[in-house]
Amino acid sequence: MATTYFSKRNLHFLLHEVFKAEELTKYDYFSAHDRETFNLVIDSATYIADTLMHPYLKEVDRNQPELKNGQVTVHPKIREYLKAMGEAGLIGAGFSFEHGGQQLPEMISSCVGFIIMAANNGMMYTGLTSGAAHLITSFGSPELNEAYVPNLLAGTWQGTMALTEPQAGSSLSDVTTSATPLPDGSYKIQGQKVFISAGDHDAAENIIHLMLARIDGAPKGTKGISLFVVPKYRPDGQGNFVDNDVTSTGVYHKMGQKGVPAMHLTMGSNDNTIGYLVGQPHQGLPYMFQMMNEARIGVGMTAAAISTAAYYAALEYAKERPQSRRLNQKNLLDSPQTPIINHPDVRRMLLFQKAVTEGSLSLLLEAARLYDISEVAEGEEKENAFLLLDLLMPVAKSYPSEMGVQSVSQSVQTFGGYGFTEDFPVEQLYRDIRITPIYEGTTGIQAQDLLGRKITMKGGKAPQLLFAEISKTIAEASTHDDLKPYADQLTTELKRIQEVLASLLPFAQQGEIERYLSDATLFLELFGIVVVAWQWLKQAVVAKQTLLTQNPQGDEQSFYEGKIHTMKFFFHYEVPKTLGLAVRLKDPEVLTIVTEKELAL
Amino acid sequence: MATTYFSKRNLHFLLHEVFKAEELTKYDYFSAHDRETFNLVIDSATYIADTLMHPYLKEVDRNQPELKNGQVTVHPKIREYLKAMGEAGLIGAGFSFEHGGQQLPEMISSCVGFIIMAANNGMMYTGLTSGAAHLITSFGSPELNEAYVPNLLAGTWQGTMALTEPQAGSSLSDVTTSATPLPDGSYKIQGQKVFISAGDHDAAENIIHLMLARIDGAPKGTKGISLFVVPKYRPDGQGNFVDNDVTSTGVYHKMGQKGVPAMHLTMGSNDNTIGYLVGQPHQGLPYMFQMMNEARIGVGMTAAAISTAAYYAALEYAKERPQSRRLNQKNLLDSPQTPIINHPDVRRMLLFQKAVTEGSLSLLLEAARLYDISEVAEGEEKENAFLLLDLLMPVAKSYPSEMGVQSVSQSVQTFGGYGFTEDFPVEQLYRDIRITPIYEGTTGIQAQDLLGRKITMKGGKAPQLLFAEISKTIAEASTHDDLKPYADQLTTELKRIQEVLASLLPFAQQGEIERYLSDATLFLELFGIVVVAWQWLKQAVVAKQTLLTQNPQGDEQSFYEGKIHTMKFFFHYEVPKTLGLAVRLKDPEVLTIVTEKELAL
Repeated sequence: MATTYFSKRNLHFLLHEVFKAEELTKYDYFSAHDRETFNLVIDSATYIADTLMHPYLKEVDRNQPELKNGQVTVHPKIREYLKAMGEAGLIGAGFSFEHGGQQLPEMISSCVGFIIMAANNGMMYTGLTSGAAHLITSFGSPELNEAYVPNLLAGTWQGTMALTEPQAGSSLSDVTTSATPLPDGSYKIQGQKVFISAGDHDAAENIIHLMLARIDGAPKGTKGISLFVVPKYRPDGQGNFVDNDVTSTGVYHKMGQKGVPAMHLTMGSNDNTIGYLVGQPHQGLPYMFQMMNEARIGVGMTAAAISTAAYYAALEYAKERPQSRRLNQKNLLDSPQTPIINHPDVRRMLLFQKAVTEGSLSLLLEAARLYDISEVAEGEEKENAFLLLDLLMPVAKSYPSEMGVQSVSQSVQTFGGYGFTEDFPVEQLYRDIRITPIYEGTTGIQAQDLLGRKITMKGGKAPQLLFAEISKTIAEASTHDDLKPYADQLTTELKRIQEVLASLLPFAQQGEIERYLSDATLFLELFGIVVVAWQWLKQAVVAKQTLLTQNPQGDEQSFYEGKIHTMKFFFHYEVPKTLGLAVRLKDPEVLTIVTEKELAL
Repeated sequence: MATTYFSKRNLHFLLHEVFKAEELTKYDYFSAHDRETFNLVIDSATYIADTLMHPYLKEVDRNQPELKNGQVTVHPKIREYLKAMGEAGLIGAGFSFEHGGQQLPEMISSCVGFIIMAANNGMMYTGLTSGAAHLITSFGSPELNEAYVPNLLAGTWQGTMALTEPQAGSSLSDVTTSATPLPDGSYKIQGQKVFISAGDHDAAENIIHLMLARIDGAPKGTKGISLFVVPKYRPDGQGNFVDNDVTSTGVYHKMGQKGVPAMHLTMGSNDNTIGYLVGQPHQGLPYMFQMMNEARIGVGMTAAAISTAAYYAALEYAKERPQSRRLNQKNLLDSPQTPIINHPDVRRMLLFQKAVTEGSLSLLLEAARLYDISEVAEGEEKENAFLLLDLLMPVAKSYPSEMGVQSVSQSVQTFGGYGFTEDFPVEQLYRDIRITPIYEGTTGIQAQDLLGRKITMKGGKAPQLLFAEISKTIAEASTHDDLKPYADQLTTELKRIQEVLASLLPFAQQGEIERYLSDATLFLELFGIVVVAWQWLKQAVVAKQTLLTQNPQGDEQSFYEGKIHTMKFFFHYEVPKTLGLAVRLKDPEVLTIVTEKELAL
């Protein structure tokens, strides 16, 4: 078992040196905090991760939840972890004081998510609870808040997001779960939901589903979907809780993240499931979408966390495992074997992992920072932050997920045959991370969101704002001779994106949306590489300035030089991939749009 | 469970129409065969695959071998399968009549491997037995042949390749298992082997290890390694078999291919393990290497087979699963949802899978054909075939493995959330295929073999021969107006490879081997794309000619048009990746060679 699963040094570098998290405390809402309280929260999460999570990484995977006699049993440590997270205030870290939270920035609460998911992503329970509770605090009545939020934030109750139905996976307009008004203002719920993470288990005393359903007579499509609180046990109005007729119909057995049950739930088997409307009727989807950015940061963080844990396992192994001699010393059979980190190919794989994982984390903290500003700032600052966040969101969800899958694959490869065995954690992490390009909107859907909505909204203002931000970093980098070539390269990459858009946008203008979006996934990939290149240049600028002004020594010097080196790696190995992507994206040949004449696939 | 796991139509197309397998029967050695006997063998393998293998795909995965009281128990169907394969003559398909085989070309026996691995790769037993028996028939004494080969080919005994040791994974020069001569000409064996696939199990009556060991006093390094037959039960000279002190120390639990036990074996715990020298002392490694091409074709085939099975599962699902509306019809909420195959992004993923899997199979059959010619032809024809095969081998092993991993990942993605569950076979196939870039020399090692040995051997004659072969295909394609642009593109790609080599070879000439090979894996990737582009153009030429001359209708027309369409897909989506790879490979910046000054990774 790898002993290191994330780098607190790197987290501090990004939070404090690159993104200057403390600047957020200038806003009233965050003014109770400072750098020290931020670090205390991180330390508190690390303690829980070290003691209650990481030691059970394998165990939680090996003992997957089973449904027996209608009851789902999960690993006993889950209850301890939920309780500890609640007691440390970490489930409510991002909630306002008014709602019993710590009123911390998303930047900090997403770091908590990063740490605990790096420790043991099979214990992915509290992020779901936070998300569900946040829907109630944002849109629910005072009664709903009072009835549900305190127990959720305490970790005694579990929250879920109950969107997906068997016939409506990615297509929420086809949701059919029904809600029939009752005289007391509540609703009778009937329907089925699938893939509900933590949708039932015995580590919480109650399960609170934030569920999409359609009120009888509601308009078709997404405009007729409402949001409900549907508890497993509902209050009977006399201080007791009664069974709410939410049946666990099945638990999916999965390739990874086995610690979290993905439930198939049936509401209303006995015509006795009650739901409580959150906010206004037919506003379910807009409500969900307002939470989507937070949820997608969460998935991106989970992916970045898993790939980080795999990277440190691979790095540790590569430093310790002797195998063969260096390529220029092949004939020295008397010399001892060299640690595999000294083979260029292994070093390339490790640098790839470092570039992907630390680049992803940087992008996610950038997104979290924008989220915070969009929440607490005012006027143009708020609006611009929101636009930028909206644009970056599909990338911040997909890049860590898609590239994380590849990164963990390289972690497995670093171990050779051992990587395929259960003796080391990487095979599990390889299985675990594969869900992240699917959760919360697949990569294909993120790509359509980016190219189909975010690029063009408000007359293309969001990419303008982004390019202005990137240009600031380019200007800073250009003042250092050794960073200037990379700044210039990034300028070229921005032009490349503009050229690609110039060749695609006419299709959108002509209403040929299918054609416009046919290679959207490749555009997302291209855009992701450039955005992460920007994050690396940003890190390199800070590292360079620190080396120049503070002259750090030893490990610290090596840390900063490693940042610059990895930035170079990213530009020399990852950025050239944009060439082929741009060629394809500008290519007029259409090969994926279905025609009358069907081909044999 | 997907009902289709490979396409016999495609196999026949490649075997008979593209590679004209029957032409091999002009050689004396294969003259007993014709197209009909080839097809009978394929049908026979299909029957076993359909009845004894595919139905147990999940079961074999769910019930992984366990070591209890020194005995490894495997799924009971394995014994039936071994027996059926032996009785059908499929374990000995490629062996000479003299050795009790069917004297079939590798082209055909590798198709057998493809079919059975597509059906259930967790039953990967007989390929190992063939490989072990082949070492005995090629280099062993008549006594060894008589004592071991018949039972191996009958499927009653299991063969293994016992190379890897705990301290010597990829570095065979560091093998330490010892062999001490005994007065009767046999050897006492002492040591440990790890990752020995099928290294012990109860579905065979005896396990025959083809084991590398070092005779006392042998030279250091690879020049002192000898090959031995080390049985689990050895003949006592009086017609009985006695325990040979080969202890099953452990069974690795693995992420995938769970049906095959990967054993940790200890020889000589009681100082009573006897081995029998195969061929001459100190020739173990050359012997193994002569079998290596066959073994690597086998791994490539396994990868192509797994990704093919995943592709057909995804294709079937995409045709049946309705979800959302086409992008130009988003507002038609009254219309039914469309099958996801009609979404361009899903179609792109499926075409990618088809392009990778059928391109890989084509390349592997090309390699098998060259193998056959190199075995039975004479003079220059033989020599050229051998050189070409040697050059293509690292690609034919790595491309199907590396790209197969990506292809199966896209199969998972096609299923969305369901792909992550055990309800469909793709999650298992995703786990299974991950070992193939590690087996029989990791991708990094294949890359060093390609760039470090194969490109430069005999003054670069092998790439010259390859380029001449590719040029023939280019010339054929150029006669068709609609294929000519792709022929021209392939010419450009050949130039690109030459440019890359021109920039790299000076390092080799200056003895800077580490520098020369530092990005060898990227060169292998580049080379693989171009070689598979050639295979696709080859297929497209045949499809085009058939469409022109035979005017096929219905499904047949659609089959051939699908081939041309997929060729185009490969050139428009995969080939542009060479641009970025070439930029990196010609880039003078070195970032992966270890220097005095250590960086923080």
